[in-house]
Amino acid sequence: MKKTEAIGVFDSGIGGLSVLKQLLRFLPNENYVYLGDTARVPYGNKSDATVKQYAEDCTKFLLGKNVKLIVVACNTVSAVALEAVQKLAGEIPVIGMIQPAATAAIQSTNNGKIGIIGTRATIQSNAYSKAIYELAVRQNIEQNTHRHSELVSESPDINKVTLKQVQGDSVQVFSQECPLFVPLVEEGFLHHQATKQIAEEYLSGLIEESIDTLVLGCTHYPMLSQLLRDIIPNVVQIDSGEHSAVYALRLLAAQSLLCEANNDYIMKHNIQFYVTDYPNHFYELSKNLLGFGIDTPELVGL
Amino acid sequence: MKKTEAIGVFDSGIGGLSVLKQLLRFLPNENYVYLGDTARVPYGNKSDATVKQYAEDCTKFLLGKNVKLIVVACNTVSAVALEAVQKLAGEIPVIGMIQPAATAAIQSTNNGKIGIIGTRATIQSNAYSKAIYELAVRQNIEQNTHRHSELVSESPDINKVTLKQVQGDSVQVFSQECPLFVPLVEEGFLHHQATKQIAEEYLSGLIEESIDTLVLGCTHYPMLSQLLRDIIPNVVQIDSGEHSAVYALRLLAAQSLLCEANNDYIMKHNIQFYVTDYPNHFYELSKNLLGFGIDTPELVGL
Repeated sequence: MKKTEAIGVFDSGIGGLSVLKQLLRFLPNENYVYLGDTARVPYGNKSDATVKQYAEDCTKFLLGKNVKLIVVACNTVSAVALEAVQKLAGEIPVIGMIQPAATAAIQSTNNGKIGIIGTRATIQSNAYSKAIYELAVRQNIEQNTHRHSELVSESPDINKVTLKQVQGDSVQVFSQECPLFVPLVEEGFLHHQATKQIAEEYLSGLIEESIDTLVLGCTHYPMLSQLLRDIIPNVVQIDSGEHSAVYALRLLAAQSLLCEANNDYIMKHNIQFYVTDYPNHFYELSKNLLGFGIDTPELVGL
Repeated sequence: MKKTEAIGVFDSGIGGLSVLKQLLRFLPNENYVYLGDTARVPYGNKSDATVKQYAEDCTKFLLGKNVKLIVVACNTVSAVALEAVQKLAGEIPVIGMIQPAATAAIQSTNNGKIGIIGTRATIQSNAYSKAIYELAVRQNIEQNTHRHSELVSESPDINKVTLKQVQGDSVQVFSQECPLFVPLVEEGFLHHQATKQIAEEYLSGLIEESIDTLVLGCTHYPMLSQLLRDIIPNVVQIDSGEHSAVYALRLLAAQSLLCEANNDYIMKHNIQFYVTDYPNHFYELSKNLLGFGIDTPELVGL
């Protein structure tokens, strides 16, 4: 694989542009191919089987562009179809949204109470809970191994025991689906009283549980960051896009696949944009999510 | 064509079940095939080209079921792709949502001020305005012909002149896109304070214009009928599904294609349901829209 090959990024629509924004922050010198499946958006309320099929279509398209890395810039796809994408991608590394954000959540929490918000498909998959519990178990085992090495070696069933301890004492995950957030964001209702009311209802359970960390488990949700902070202050918000971008930087560096810096302080991003349909408000929405507007994405069929 | 062949009904998703409900009311003895393209729902924010392609896929599916009539139970498709459906359907008659509701609106209005609410695609197509203005012109011409037959025969440019008169004096159409209504309905926020606030904003312009007739130009909107009545009382609400069902009844009767009543007072609806994805809340939503729940729609690819 060549270092100059592009990083492929795909999403069900344009929410993934918030992930691309983070990638550009950490990896400004890379070449990018972004695909938004805007003709079939949204994925978040659809069945696993359908999401898997659509994710495979997107993956094939990016593989056709000879990308060196695939970033699944969609929490729903990451939650229910990451394995399918990885299988298709073969040796091309794949980064999803879940694992990096789960790791950041574990690192962030002090009281062990982590809240997750996402689309219905993401939440119902339990992908975040599973990832967080597994990480906590591993962390716990490492701590236990260090502190009580004799005990560990005596217990063949340590995983199971530790899992219970973790779920009971160390880490608790509280999940909440927020299906109206995506349409509200796409309509620009970012600071609207109606959005606040709906958010208050969605978050009431998490507030009651005194979470100290909140994973924004959907690429649209960073746009609601301020509104969520007003409703539930004093929690650390985890932006899944940000942590995935950091992960991408580390992965490319480890595999010596970073595109060489062009020694030019004037950044000019090299991004090819593809969509399967021209969405409404495309310019405004892309500007909100990405920081700059996109005039001319290329229309493609999958 | 046989009278016993089914009526084919399709929609981007399950909103069209509110149309099927009206069809069952006026045509209870018919056989039905209902197709919901739930894998690619919604259509309402997508481009005309994509909506047309999806509508053609749905039409082909229904034609494969040998239907005797196609009801396009989706305002968006009716607004931007009815011609494409008609072309594919050939001799099979096609009924859309726009024309029957436009006719009902013209008949209903006293002050000539008609409001239309719908998805973004429906409103931006101007399909309702065009249909209403054309009907008003025709009505006006007929009235003029009757009253001033000499004048009409003297004026070769009567259409143009009358159109201006109609737009200026007789009928005015005020349109408002309401893109958040569909997700709010699908999430069951039918009487929610947030929905009311959003609806108040959407409708404020129509209220200012003192409309006396409001076309619910989306199959989901009848579910918001009561909430809309609270916000804008004293207007006649036009349910596009209801008027299309009446039109279907008249069309089948005129073409001697009505399924004979089975002389059985115990109605048992004969409906085959097909979807392209199993949507969330399917049972509950179908129960709300249709009046009874559907357990087992058949999953199909298009």
